[in-house]
Amino acid sequence: MKKSIGINSMVFPSPVFVVGTYDEDEKPDMITIAWAGIAASDPAAVVIAVRPTRYSHENIIKHKAFTVNLPTKKFIKEADYFGITSGRDTDKLADTGLTAVKGEFVDAPYIEEFPFAIECELADQLDFGSHTLFIGAIKDIKVDTEIIGENDKVDFVKAGILTFDISTDSYLLPGEFAGKAFSEGLFFRKKE
Amino acid sequence: MKKSIGINSMVFPSPVFVVGTYDEDEKPDMITIAWAGIAASDPAAVVIAVRPTRYSHENIIKHKAFTVNLPTKKFIKEADYFGITSGRDTDKLADTGLTAVKGEFVDAPYIEEFPFAIECELADQLDFGSHTLFIGAIKDIKVDTEIIGENDKVDFVKAGILTFDISTDSYLLPGEFAGKAFSEGLFFRKKE
Repeated sequence: MKKSIGINSMVFPSPVFVVGTYDEDEKPDMITIAWAGIAASDPAAVVIAVRPTRYSHENIIKHKAFTVNLPTKKFIKEADYFGITSGRDTDKLADTGLTAVKGEFVDAPYIEEFPFAIECELADQLDFGSHTLFIGAIKDIKVDTEIIGENDKVDFVKAGILTFDISTDSYLLPGEFAGKAFSEGLFFRKKE
Repeated sequence: MKKSIGINSMVFPSPVFVVGTYDEDEKPDMITIAWAGIAASDPAAVVIAVRPTRYSHENIIKHKAFTVNLPTKKFIKEADYFGITSGRDTDKLADTGLTAVKGEFVDAPYIEEFPFAIECELADQLDFGSHTLFIGAIKDIKVDTEIIGENDKVDFVKAGILTFDISTDSYLLPGEFAGKAFSEGLFFRKKE
């Protein structure tokens, strides 16, 4: 039995992207964005939705770069703080004590203490209603060696990378394994 | 200690969007897409990345509409199948026995058996490298009443909506509560 709940920006899951930029004085800034995902594979790219009023919006356009840093539960206070404060009013890195490292390939800072960081070069953008969609071409990914698991794969589950649940305004840990992709569906393949 | 793993389309978490369309003969089709998220709040909109070679790509352009259906573990085989098969070759709804219902507001079908369905009207698009980003303006969300929990909020965790882990090609269940958004970060607010 389905009920209509109307028009709402609601899906599950959403990521917790801590997006790093420099402002015009080269002060590092971070903003937390849940409206984001992968955009393409060739070139490898992410997409993030940013309101034009946010400080990060002008930083991204000025420096044509940003990073995406993925937080774990250990950094939940920091990740949340970055979303509820503006870099116009304060130095968020100083406030939290986290370390901003200049990107190796792009003109944006990543967070040393977070286990996963993506360096992105601004490659395209689309203004849509309340938000600008920035497409960032991935120039490098840096990972803490301790979250690299079996077969050299990044172990996001063991790392405890956070998920955002927009319905309840909550952060969640990664959940249990439910099944293998590109495999479960073979069940329905017609026998030849 | 960070290690560079190079250029890769990798983030965590990714959603499991089962995207519904009609083809030119009005046959309902579904494709599973993990490269997707929310795009804006006004108008409320989602963004999905689709390769031009996929059958759904032409369907979306022809009908200017699609739906986003969120699967639970119960439908893991169906959701995975939709991603590894083409609607050019088979009738995926018939193969899986799921029911396609014509959208109330848009010219695309949603899945009756899944607990959460979004009706989207194609509002904009951006070609970027290997993929087209389709922006879908949300016209309605339909939810099974049994996954509406406390305070009339959709309970994605109880519903068991799937997450995609691109690093290990796995589907995951929702994880445990880690903290409240727009609240944990108050810890760093300066005392006035």
